[in-house]
Amino acid sequence: MPEKENQNATRWGVLSSSWTRLRGLLQHLSGDATALESGRLDRRLLARMNKTLADCVAETGGEVSARQRAAWLGQTYLGLEAPGRMDFLRLLLALEPDPAPVTAAAQAWLDAADEAQRADAAITLRKRLASPRVQVLRQFNGLPDGVHLLVSMREDLLHWSRKHPELARLDADFYDLLASWFDIGFLEMRRITWEAPAALLEKLIAYEAVHAITSWTDLRNRLDSDRRCYAFFHPRMPDEPLIFVEVALCRKLAGNVQSLLDQSLPTIDPEGADTAIFYSISTTQPGLRGVSFGNFLIKRVVGELQAEFPRLKTFATLSPIPGFCRWLGDMLSSGKPLLSADEAAALKTAASTCLPEADGGLQSVLDCPAWWQESAVATVLEAPLIRLATAYLVPETQSAELDPVARFHLGNGARIERLNWLGDLSERGMRQSAGIMVNYLYDLSSIEANHEAFSGQGKIAVSPAVNRSRPKKAAKSNP
Amino acid sequence: MPEKENQNATRWGVLSSSWTRLRGLLQHLSGDATALESGRLDRRLLARMNKTLADCVAETGGEVSARQRAAWLGQTYLGLEAPGRMDFLRLLLALEPDPAPVTAAAQAWLDAADEAQRADAAITLRKRLASPRVQVLRQFNGLPDGVHLLVSMREDLLHWSRKHPELARLDADFYDLLASWFDIGFLEMRRITWEAPAALLEKLIAYEAVHAITSWTDLRNRLDSDRRCYAFFHPRMPDEPLIFVEVALCRKLAGNVQSLLDQSLPTIDPEGADTAIFYSISTTQPGLRGVSFGNFLIKRVVGELQAEFPRLKTFATLSPIPGFCRWLGDMLSSGKPLLSADEAAALKTAASTCLPEADGGLQSVLDCPAWWQESAVATVLEAPLIRLATAYLVPETQSAELDPVARFHLGNGARIERLNWLGDLSERGMRQSAGIMVNYLYDLSSIEANHEAFSGQGKIAVSPAVNRSRPKKAAKSNP
Amino acid sequence: MPEKENQNATRWGVLSSSWTRLRGLLQHLSGDATALESGRLDRRLLARMNKTLADCVAETGGEVSARQRAAWLGQTYLGLEAPGRMDFLRLLLALEPDPAPVTAAAQAWLDAADEAQRADAAITLRKRLASPRVQVLRQFNGLPDGVHLLVSMREDLLHWSRKHPELARLDADFYDLLASWFDIGFLEMRRITWEAPAALLEKLIAYEAVHAITSWTDLRNRLDSDRRCYAFFHPRMPDEPLIFVEVALCRKLAGNVQSLLDQSLPTIDPEGADTAIFYSISTTQPGLRGVSFGNFLIKRVVGELQAEFPRLKTFATLSPIPGFCRWLGDMLSSGKPLLSADEAAALKTAASTCLPEADGGLQSVLDCPAWWQESAVATVLEAPLIRLATAYLVPETQSAELDPVARFHLGNGARIERLNWLGDLSERGMRQSAGIMVNYLYDLSSIEANHEAFSGQGKIAVSPAVNRSRPKKAAKSNP
Amino acid sequence: MPEKENQNATRWGVLSSSWTRLRGLLQHLSGDATALESGRLDRRLLARMNKTLADCVAETGGEVSARQRAAWLGQTYLGLEAPGRMDFLRLLLALEPDPAPVTAAAQAWLDAADEAQRADAAITLRKRLASPRVQVLRQFNGLPDGVHLLVSMREDLLHWSRKHPELARLDADFYDLLASWFDIGFLEMRRITWEAPAALLEKLIAYEAVHAITSWTDLRNRLDSDRRCYAFFHPRMPDEPLIFVEVALCRKLAGNVQSLLDQSLPTIDPEGADTAIFYSISTTQPGLRGVSFGNFLIKRVVGELQAEFPRLKTFATLSPIPGFCRWLGDMLSSGKPLLSADEAAALKTAASTCLPEADGGLQSVLDCPAWWQESAVATVLEAPLIRLATAYLVPETQSAELDPVARFHLGNGARIERLNWLGDLSERGMRQSAGIMVNYLYDLSSIEANHEAFSGQGKIAVSPAVNRSRPKKAAKSNP
Repeated sequence: MPEKENQNATRWGVLSSSWTRLRGLLQHLSGDATALESGRLDRRLLARMNKTLADCVAETGGEVSARQRAAWLGQTYLGLEAPGRMDFLRLLLALEPDPAPVTAAAQAWLDAADEAQRADAAITLRKRLASPRVQVLRQFNGLPDGVHLLVSMREDLLHWSRKHPELARLDADFYDLLASWFDIGFLEMRRITWEAPAALLEKLIAYEAVHAITSWTDLRNRLDSDRRCYAFFHPRMPDEPLIFVEVALCRKLAGNVQSLLDQSLPTIDPEGADTAIFYSISTTQPGLRGVSFGNFLIKRVVGELQAEFPRLKTFATLSPIPGFCRWLGDMLSSGKPLLSADEAAALKTAASTCLPEADGGLQSVLDCPAWWQESAVATVLEAPLIRLATAYLVPETQSAELDPVARFHLGNGARIERLNWLGDLSERGMRQSAGIMVNYLYDLSSIEANHEAFSGQGKIAVSPAVNRSRPKKAAKSNP
Repeated sequence: MPEKENQNATRWGVLSSSWTRLRGLLQHLSGDATALESGRLDRRLLARMNKTLADCVAETGGEVSARQRAAWLGQTYLGLEAPGRMDFLRLLLALEPDPAPVTAAAQAWLDAADEAQRADAAITLRKRLASPRVQVLRQFNGLPDGVHLLVSMREDLLHWSRKHPELARLDADFYDLLASWFDIGFLEMRRITWEAPAALLEKLIAYEAVHAITSWTDLRNRLDSDRRCYAFFHPRMPDEPLIFVEVALCRKLAGNVQSLLDQSLPTIDPEGADTAIFYSISTTQPGLRGVSFGNFLIKRVVGELQAEFPRLKTFATLSPIPGFCRWLGDMLSSGKPLLSADEAAALKTAASTCLPEADGGLQSVLDCPAWWQESAVATVLEAPLIRLATAYLVPETQSAELDPVARFHLGNGARIERLNWLGDLSERGMRQSAGIMVNYLYDLSSIEANHEAFSGQGKIAVSPAVNRSRPKKAAKSNP
Repeated sequence: MPEKENQNATRWGVLSSSWTRLRGLLQHLSGDATALESGRLDRRLLARMNKTLADCVAETGGEVSARQRAAWLGQTYLGLEAPGRMDFLRLLLALEPDPAPVTAAAQAWLDAADEAQRADAAITLRKRLASPRVQVLRQFNGLPDGVHLLVSMREDLLHWSRKHPELARLDADFYDLLASWFDIGFLEMRRITWEAPAALLEKLIAYEAVHAITSWTDLRNRLDSDRRCYAFFHPRMPDEPLIFVEVALCRKLAGNVQSLLDQSLPTIDPEGADTAIFYSISTTQPGLRGVSFGNFLIKRVVGELQAEFPRLKTFATLSPIPGFCRWLGDMLSSGKPLLSADEAAALKTAASTCLPEADGGLQSVLDCPAWWQESAVATVLEAPLIRLATAYLVPETQSAELDPVARFHLGNGARIERLNWLGDLSERGMRQSAGIMVNYLYDLSSIEANHEAFSGQGKIAVSPAVNRSRPKKAAKSNP
Repeated sequence: MPEKENQNATRWGVLSSSWTRLRGLLQHLSGDATALESGRLDRRLLARMNKTLADCVAETGGEVSARQRAAWLGQTYLGLEAPGRMDFLRLLLALEPDPAPVTAAAQAWLDAADEAQRADAAITLRKRLASPRVQVLRQFNGLPDGVHLLVSMREDLLHWSRKHPELARLDADFYDLLASWFDIGFLEMRRITWEAPAALLEKLIAYEAVHAITSWTDLRNRLDSDRRCYAFFHPRMPDEPLIFVEVALCRKLAGNVQSLLDQSLPTIDPEGADTAIFYSISTTQPGLRGVSFGNFLIKRVVGELQAEFPRLKTFATLSPIPGFCRWLGDMLSSGKPLLSADEAAALKTAASTCLPEADGGLQSVLDCPAWWQESAVATVLEAPLIRLATAYLVPETQSAELDPVARFHLGNGARIERLNWLGDLSERGMRQSAGIMVNYLYDLSSIEANHEAFSGQGKIAVSPAVNRSRPKKAAKSNP
């Protein structure tokens, strides 16, 4: 795990250097840095911020002046520690619309005699309901990094609203504004290569959320001639990849991530590839939660790749099942027998010699570090774990909670194509997914139908092979 | 006026070439061009558009598919003639939120017991009031020129809503969306020089709204080393200047536009200039009416110029008074005597010899073409017309309607610095402003106070000199 | 011809603005502008320049200092009038290598006993022969516009060496250096579109040497979607197109330039074109005389076009015959009968009614302005003038002087494909080429063989049709 | 040393990837790859290359065809192993000018009666001496990476001409051509930052020749806000830094490289720096030997830094003395006593306890690894080693060979400002320079005079302090 810490440190380093730049710009703009020193929000400063907020709302001195004031607010916010920032967010919370006109308009809606009156009432009501804080949030956009500031402010907000639920009320406005400004139509998709600035590549290393990038050499391998990496960028945050996807061009469906990340393997001629494997997709901005990019990114990358390599026939992911082991633990705790009698016996036999510390039960075997290196154990477990993972991914009842990665790809219209045994041997891969990886297939001709069936009736698209490996209802195991 | 027609033709040429490109892109995207051929919206097409709108709202097939459907709608819209387009806008008009949930939420607002409940009710109410058409409008943003399409659609809308007031109801949504997307923070200010693409410069010629650009040589003169031209651009409409301003660097306040536009005059060394004259500012997109850019553009240009030429001390406009002659006509019609007896007599004498076709009264003299070329007449008229123009610009009562150009600059915090006799001898300059031009002074140190006094109490900032030239209340003229 | 003057004026304006910039840069660099004021080279200045030249050769103070000194020389040169510039060129002329070492090396060559000794002697001899002035010329390259300066200096040189043949001796060094620096491998081919900077497009207008560009609208037509314009640029003169070619994409071989330049004709869909017509090629830098670009440009453009439009089958020029009328005049003066008796009679008849001022002879008819507008005359003249032009282009004896345009294209390996009657009705087209235009065909499969046959045996490639129209040796005309 | 190997491996990786690209381009161009497979030059291929060379010289088929043939030659060359390449270079060697015309021209020179005749004779002689191989070398410039190819060919040539001195004869032509094409005026200086492409930064790691870059973090530290890195690029080799320099902005003259490379030290505010230390300068292309860049790069960087940081007062290097230890060894071998009796005794005492494996003599102490970590020894050695290094750098006789780094900076007009004890503790620093580093001061006001004194009379500029530390002639040591 020190590796992980290290990576977080790196990430923090990268992000904090962005912050440093942002703060610098803000200081430059407004010239008052006292708040930055202390990081606290004393009564005097609180009052000043409140007064400034009011001036921003009233646009005292005109709209240009209002944005200059907003700059001061933004700078001050960035200079504050958590308690001060929360104080400021509470000031924002208080910026509610004047209730009397809203009440009148609400009444007018209720009294509307026909559709036309209702439509007019709706217009009036919307306008009066507009909260003054949205105006202030927009004014932050006058700052050089104002959009980034808003994204970070929402990250704070989401973080704290678990413990301070009143703050959650702010989120509707933040979300609406950011969803409008980060509309997919404004994002630019860029291919990222080894020719990209080191300062950008360094962020990929920091942000990669699926399969950690362990070194610059690892990164270089992921940007080689038989790989592609694409990211979405916003014009106001040109140095920040909002989401990025890593693709390997290969022959046939790739089933394990080890070989994709093995830097010693030779590159293949991309012209000869028939399959594109999306093996990692990472979002980078917690402050943009709920603003959807991934679906668009995958489909646009499919389009790009089809144009560049007309021979590509198959587009699929190689994905973890991050919720599998937790679900499996719950199932085991509930005492339900998950293995057949034969399977249980075989496992006991296999484990007895090589994993003496385990009691031979499924849980105790899975608790052994590196159980999968014992080929006898791994052989015995393959069939039942694949079956159980299939059961988790394709539950019999619609009410069951879906794996988050599955939900994302199924919602995009993909189908579950194949489960791969020992597909991810990393510490996390074993801990979360028992090493199993899934290929989700993006077949353009059936994406719409899959999506409709899934979002309408909750029907999960699976390949015939996966369907066959689902547990038969009859096949009950005996303890 | 053939010149004007010519210019409109040119403008149309430029714009239509943009349209052609847009249409091409749309056709490329959706492949169905039948609507483009006919330009009519028959019943079958109407039904199909309506069905597609519903699918867009429901995001049938997923959000990526929805945007592809929106592309077809956009293409079809562009291929329609006015009646068909209006039909489509009426389809949009019908996309109102479901009334029952809104009613419930309105009631919840009315019933709210405290601020917290009210805040929650406001969130719910806002969400339920969101009209489904906004979702469709956003989906147009998936098109390569989707933002441009929306701007053009609103241009249609504003144009037709005079005669079809029900369409005006759509405008609130269009305005909200465009105001959010064209937030000043997203705009990029670019300097435009003779090194700019001809395809862009051609648009300046087409869009110039104050002093027509008569040739490429005229344009080149306006981009010379002692001139500056800046424009705002939106990242999604990179070839379209949204607004642009032309600035002359000179010594002392310039009082007439003829010398600024005289291509035969030598350029001056801009390093020696002490004054920047903003002599033309044009907005280009009727579809962005109400979204304010001008104030920001002027102030950012002031900032740029201060950085580039630290010796500049004075920033002022040279502006027409477009409403003056109409106001003057109204005053004359009302029978009020506007000239003193001496002035009236002097005018009669001066006009009698050189303008025999006039009866010697003010109106009849002003009706003579080129009256200002008669120096005797011009000399007699200077004092009274300047006085009257001042009276028009700085009315005694707050209820009086302000000149639109004055309102813009005063709202920005500028002050009326000087009126210039025979400052614009063009046909339009004489017809609208009686040739008088105004310098509005942007003095950064008093802009905020001016703005507040103007927007708060309607107080108009004027220089001491202009103040002195205002008509004295006592000075009544005798007929 | 005022048009022509006008154009020269424009050209001068463009060029002189480049000069102004160059001078400004130079002044900035060296700070001494006295020479610029007077424009004369007095004795004191002459001595100083000579001393500086010596310091440049000796690299006094090091090579960095030497280049700074060269900057002063360059600036001074630009500030001088013709006499002063010639003085400076004569100073350069005096920078000859030290003769004694050359003599020793020449003797060593003569005495060399074997190839190895000779090779060594050659190396020594070359080194000692290197004239010190080349070192100074290279030092000018330290200037921002130093390469441009050298090109312009050579332009001066070539201009004056007609009257001052001693200056011609300088040219070998200038040519060698520029030919090395302007090697085709260093040039960048760029497509020029309507998106190009106006400052560049303006130069096309100034430099166009074949069919004058009469307006920006004319230029825009030449850059339309069914046209292409390509130019070579040098990295050190990025704003100067060194040579450019204008191409029309069309169906079938174009035979007249009028329709190509007619702005009212619609554009065609370039995807449907089967023929690319190179209708204008202009070099722009007299100072690069003898450095060959045109051959490369044409062939690279053919390559570009083939890649962009795979349906193009035919690549041909539409070219004037600039030497034809002069040759025809010489032939007529020599008294040889050029028309057959029938032709002469028919011409007399046709001319008698409509061209009463002519005596009916060929010369007198051609002297009439707009004779070609008389269709009777034009009809009678077509066959004999085409025949005569063919005879001029494809002379029977190898010793005959070739038309310069023909020589260029034949040297490139093209063949004479077709002569076009009334192909260029412009004043110059009629005056020089009697309105006839030629298509030279660039057929890639026969270019090498054509070139070899032409450069080796002087054999001119012609199409079968042109071959048939050559005057038969037997067909002597009787007076 | 495995680190070193590693680095060479990396370097080879980077370079070979360039080669791969180059080869790919060449194959693409000429389509014949057989030579690449075998890497040998059989008789048939040799004959074909020879024939092609002749065609290139004759420009058979025209100059465009000649360059296409040269592409084939270039590709074939790259595909050959060393013996084949040498064969090709020998073919080039045979391309000598026709001797008879040279002989005639040499005779004409000898017979010239006056200066004018001599000047004409020189022109003729130069022309006839021009070797045909230069024409072929230029034709390589038609290749996309042709300039790079020539540079690499010369690298081969220089490498092999030690053992095959006949090849050295080729070098005059290669050098002349490359010196002309790589004239400093054509190079572009670019600042390299952390925003540069990783593919470029990777080359810095590979090419750094003074203080090895050990990791990307090390590199990042060298590109931090208080550092600068500049390189020269050629427009035809845009991805290859030809030479680069690393600069640290600091307060006061830096005396050791350890602290400059210590990644844990905080950055300083560059605005507060008064000194710029050039601590590493590396050339990257052995094939450009003798073409001088370094002098220009240093002085242009000084100019850039002065413009960016007007407070910088001192510009100096921190440089090794790579020849010192070899010289010292020679001195010790010659038996001359280098230490005074007191020094020798003190060294013996100090070494006896901590370096028991040494015999206490200077050589044996210096042979001990890490002797400098023994502070007693280091203290004793400081004065005499600094004195000896000074003696080496500033020899008493002009005939003595100078340290190569000293010669470079002194030739540029710098002066020896200070010697720093234990300034470079790296393995190489100790082995070559006994850990001593030198500051060479670039004082713009005395650079020219220093250069002249050095290049004219061999006078070495030293600071007063260094002068004082030179060994006194009287101070003879007694054995």
